[in-house]
Amino acid sequence: MSEVYATRRARLRDRCQAGGSEAALIARPANVRYLAGAAPSGSVLLLGPRQDLVVCSGPPDDRTSPWRPDEALALHNLAAPGGDPAVAAADLATGQGIGSLAVEEHHLTVARHRALASVAPRLRVADLGGAAEQLRVIKDEEEISCLRIGAEIADQALGELLESILVGRTERHLALELERRLVDHGADGPAFTTSVGTGPNSGRPGHRPTDRRVEEGDFLSVCLGAAYRGYRCEIGRTFVIGTSPADWQIELYDLVFAAQRAGRESLAPGAAYRDVDRAARQVLESAGHHEGLPPRTGHGVGLEIDEDPQLAPAAMGKLDACVPVTVEPGVHLPGRGGVRIDDTLVVRPEADGGPELLTITTKELLAL
Amino acid sequence: MSEVYATRRARLRDRCQAGGSEAALIARPANVRYLAGAAPSGSVLLLGPRQDLVVCSGPPDDRTSPWRPDEALALHNLAAPGGDPAVAAADLATGQGIGSLAVEEHHLTVARHRALASVAPRLRVADLGGAAEQLRVIKDEEEISCLRIGAEIADQALGELLESILVGRTERHLALELERRLVDHGADGPAFTTSVGTGPNSGRPGHRPTDRRVEEGDFLSVCLGAAYRGYRCEIGRTFVIGTSPADWQIELYDLVFAAQRAGRESLAPGAAYRDVDRAARQVLESAGHHEGLPPRTGHGVGLEIDEDPQLAPAAMGKLDACVPVTVEPGVHLPGRGGVRIDDTLVVRPEADGGPELLTITTKELLAL
Repeated sequence: MSEVYATRRARLRDRCQAGGSEAALIARPANVRYLAGAAPSGSVLLLGPRQDLVVCSGPPDDRTSPWRPDEALALHNLAAPGGDPAVAAADLATGQGIGSLAVEEHHLTVARHRALASVAPRLRVADLGGAAEQLRVIKDEEEISCLRIGAEIADQALGELLESILVGRTERHLALELERRLVDHGADGPAFTTSVGTGPNSGRPGHRPTDRRVEEGDFLSVCLGAAYRGYRCEIGRTFVIGTSPADWQIELYDLVFAAQRAGRESLAPGAAYRDVDRAARQVLESAGHHEGLPPRTGHGVGLEIDEDPQLAPAAMGKLDACVPVTVEPGVHLPGRGGVRIDDTLVVRPEADGGPELLTITTKELLAL
Repeated sequence: MSEVYATRRARLRDRCQAGGSEAALIARPANVRYLAGAAPSGSVLLLGPRQDLVVCSGPPDDRTSPWRPDEALALHNLAAPGGDPAVAAADLATGQGIGSLAVEEHHLTVARHRALASVAPRLRVADLGGAAEQLRVIKDEEEISCLRIGAEIADQALGELLESILVGRTERHLALELERRLVDHGADGPAFTTSVGTGPNSGRPGHRPTDRRVEEGDFLSVCLGAAYRGYRCEIGRTFVIGTSPADWQIELYDLVFAAQRAGRESLAPGAAYRDVDRAARQVLESAGHHEGLPPRTGHGVGLEIDEDPQLAPAAMGKLDACVPVTVEPGVHLPGRGGVRIDDTLVVRPEADGGPELLTITTKELLAL
């Protein structure tokens, strides 16, 4: 694995040097993990012209991650507790004769940035921007395999829930049970806070579970994901409780299903982000749902549950092969509830069979 | 309740104006919640000389909190999705003729700060520092009552776990069960990731549960807390599995217990933070434990699980009445395990009976 991280670091170093900085300071935990193999709590990565260095605020342990930093990397532990590894790294950089440093201005606070600049007043500090995040967009097969395992775990957890009795149980309890099952099946933990919405809460994006109990006739929408070796996937499904869905429920479900399918089918290398969004969105809009549609219909996943690309009307850029994304349109009718269908897929060329669906739980409207 | 928030805002406005700024922009979620009664996801609070305003990136809903912002506050929703409410607030401030704005430089990223300054180039932007965090240190009785209920919930969850069979179960499962029980008893959710450490993992601060199973003869250390109406408390206990603890276990337990008691007993209005830390720390050091002691032996709790004050050797400041803190010394012997005992208490004057213990689960060494 060590070579993988070294290659990633070399690519970032090239970008950084092309931008005119000798070294880069990486502080965003997902970026540190991507480049160093692990991100001990609070640690930063200094990518220097000659040597790369992980700076930790204490002895690296497995508290935040069972994965230790790449052994090819030098490690520097701060002697005093409570110090800021980013500030220490800037100091170390100056000591190594480095004259210019690119930092993540979208991650560092103004106060940290100032502290860093003040310990190393001769250092020219520039903005690295999202260069590390951009590297992370296209995944290698090892990363995709972690996402695939995570998706299998989420499918299993969801499948087991569907076999249990749901009426009378609260959203909170269903969410906790799903999270327990994720861990049972080998997840590091939930990829994000599990969402369970019933009745009027169904179909609301990001709904936090409440004490509302599942009732006959409800829509039940569930969104969960597993983190597996740091990689996070997402699945969302909507069900009906009871034997016979109402006409409005069938109609709404079919509509969201059609929108989600249109989004999935438009995933291809070279497709514009906004066109994927439009494919799903226009199905909903043409049925009269303009108000209250979510600002995007999907997003990238990986070491973070929400990363680039954004599948949204104003997003710029085109999909590449090996980019995992969610497709998750939904409609929520205030006071009544709604439907949300969410898959994680990997963009693949037509020649390889088109988009690879990672979350394979059925999307038929099940009556439970 | 509305008056409580208005009073808090008035106090902060006074501090801000004393610092030379006409208005303040609050972006840290716990600070927004403290001052506005709720912090819809991504929202910021603009404290102006004439009017206070919550700026949200979308319609405020109960996704992140069941508590709506104080109705006395004006609300402004960004029209376009994806915008930054902090930037919009700076723009609104200029529109209101405000010339100077204090911002939280320890919270805002460099990129947000720059975007904010660029939409309002004539605005003088200064640093508010931790003024809002400082206001939050001393709690009112309403806040303490939320912490007290949270502590009761945590005590109940822990008490139930102790009655169940533990041998053979994994750290992960015990942690998940504790979290489920917290919710069962009315918590919003866990106050932080529940820590369960067995055998060699016991007594490690912040240990993330693994798949290690509880064995006879293990130390088992547990640290959990409930969030109740946003307020977060903490309790940590260490137990022995089996009938007869080993001599080293009894000795280590008694030592940490003595350290924790010394810390608790030193809590009083006017006591220096560092003296409370020293009271606990010197018990451990005098028994020869110098290496590997945690950098602090306690900290404040409230809307965040880790807030001021810090009970640490170099901390500056003195305790006041009505400040809730943890006292949580511990010793971890690499490869063998350790002990950690953690309570949440409220500093009270001697005349009121001294420190109020919120987490009342026994601190006897139980053999389970």
